[in-house]
Amino acid sequence: MKTEYSNILIYGLGLMGASLSLALKKRGIGSHVTGVVSSLKSKRLGEFLKSADTVLTSEEFHSFKQWKDYDFIIFGVPVDLTVKLIAELPLDFDGVLTDLGSTKKEIIQAVEARFQNSHNYVSSHPMCGSEESGLESANVSLYEGRLCILTSPKNAKPEIKERLESFWKSIGMDVIEIPAVEHDSILSYLSHSPHILSSIMADWAANQKIVKHYTDLSPIPLNGGGFRDMTRIAGSNPKMWAAIFNSNQDEIYRSLSDFRDRLDIILEKLNPKNTLNPQEWEKFMETSRKSRDYILKNQDDSKKH
Amino acid sequence: MKTEYSNILIYGLGLMGASLSLALKKRGIGSHVTGVVSSLKSKRLGEFLKSADTVLTSEEFHSFKQWKDYDFIIFGVPVDLTVKLIAELPLDFDGVLTDLGSTKKEIIQAVEARFQNSHNYVSSHPMCGSEESGLESANVSLYEGRLCILTSPKNAKPEIKERLESFWKSIGMDVIEIPAVEHDSILSYLSHSPHILSSIMADWAANQKIVKHYTDLSPIPLNGGGFRDMTRIAGSNPKMWAAIFNSNQDEIYRSLSDFRDRLDIILEKLNPKNTLNPQEWEKFMETSRKSRDYILKNQDDSKKH
Repeated sequence: MKTEYSNILIYGLGLMGASLSLALKKRGIGSHVTGVVSSLKSKRLGEFLKSADTVLTSEEFHSFKQWKDYDFIIFGVPVDLTVKLIAELPLDFDGVLTDLGSTKKEIIQAVEARFQNSHNYVSSHPMCGSEESGLESANVSLYEGRLCILTSPKNAKPEIKERLESFWKSIGMDVIEIPAVEHDSILSYLSHSPHILSSIMADWAANQKIVKHYTDLSPIPLNGGGFRDMTRIAGSNPKMWAAIFNSNQDEIYRSLSDFRDRLDIILEKLNPKNTLNPQEWEKFMETSRKSRDYILKNQDDSKKH
Repeated sequence: MKTEYSNILIYGLGLMGASLSLALKKRGIGSHVTGVVSSLKSKRLGEFLKSADTVLTSEEFHSFKQWKDYDFIIFGVPVDLTVKLIAELPLDFDGVLTDLGSTKKEIIQAVEARFQNSHNYVSSHPMCGSEESGLESANVSLYEGRLCILTSPKNAKPEIKERLESFWKSIGMDVIEIPAVEHDSILSYLSHSPHILSSIMADWAANQKIVKHYTDLSPIPLNGGGFRDMTRIAGSNPKMWAAIFNSNQDEIYRSLSDFRDRLDIILEKLNPKNTLNPQEWEKFMETSRKSRDYILKNQDDSKKH
């Protein structure tokens, strides 16, 4: 059976790229998948783990291959590198072009700067990931049941969006389209700023003398499940996240400032000169549970913990 | 075989109390376990679920029973109620007395105010729990593999600490002793303030117009696993947490103020008038991962997510 794509290129076989590659092979999507990695060490590991049919270093790719050797190109590298690679794409590329980038404004700007006329690039953001990184952490079911956000640049051919929509659905995702500015704003609240808050939290606790003293003394960790879960994403893939913070600086600043203002209101109530009103705090907890249920659309994941 | 305790009273059969009761029955610790609940509805549910050998409402308990009917009393109610009950305890009680309270200063003060001479009360804080509450959420393995912190008031008989240590070990816990002031300071960082930050986060995200617009439009939730995990404890048991905030207000204020100061430093770096230094942000992420590993004593829970 001929599949829709005969030569897929995943440029960047990190956790996201390699997991996608495994999912494509498992489902028989794409006759041949080529993955590009940054080092010879990763190439050997990728070959050993069968992360793709062919694994090339970026040096090998740029020496021996051309973008036009492929009919579907997916960038799985950090946003800053994605932007650089978009500037190299051939103007008359007739396959499908996309990326897995976590921020959209810079990528969409780069696409619109490169392609003044009709083109085949629509950006994707599969909302999955992990605090782990690297192709050795790839997981064949990473994308299943998750949401993929599509963002269309100006002049993208309408059929490209349709092809990508059915592509992501074919590996088990739901799809929604969100424009770049809105995407980056939403993500600053639901992902980027939480990564920063989680990282601050880990440092904040670990730098307290008394916490350190008893952590060293205790036979097992002092923390419960709440702290563990809240810091799970602390310090996720540093290179990728530095690029995300950089490419969404304004929105992250805005959303974290709002968080700080909300924290200040709570802090004023907690000021030892004030007496707490238990009813007010019960209400605070009740409201925040409803807020969470709203964002999570009442999905019940409590049994998993 | 005679067990060490013939009549155990768990005063407060919520999630913690009922889970403890189930663990005691499973392991054959205590010939008879009585649980006290606040309403007739909970009594019926507790009897139906076999949460304890006998289930009494607090009204029934105070009408027909005496503290001295038991040889081991464990308070499983919020800190404010625990403090009130301590004031009722008989001065010559010769069994073992403890609680499951999440803060210690107020409980220890109440014990020291009640017992001027040698007594049998040592406070416990089993570091387990859940965002769920109520005896219907009880879990027989909740305590297994977790840490229990013991805090001794003045004039507690030394053998009481030893008996409690072996009791908690018998249901699978590790034990450490930490004085009240240090306990409440540590917990403000590792549990109390994180509960507040998690709750602020849920409200913060859910009150953004653009987040709401696309949450309503999207077939599945917009958030990824990071936001889900960071808000898991948002709005946990409102009554219990209102009491915790109240009884540890000073320490929570101190630790959250420190968090706010750290957030302010990060915010200043993110100010759109500044250009981010990617190396600095990579280092921020790397350091926070090390901080987390330090607090969690490098326990590898990444596979669970």
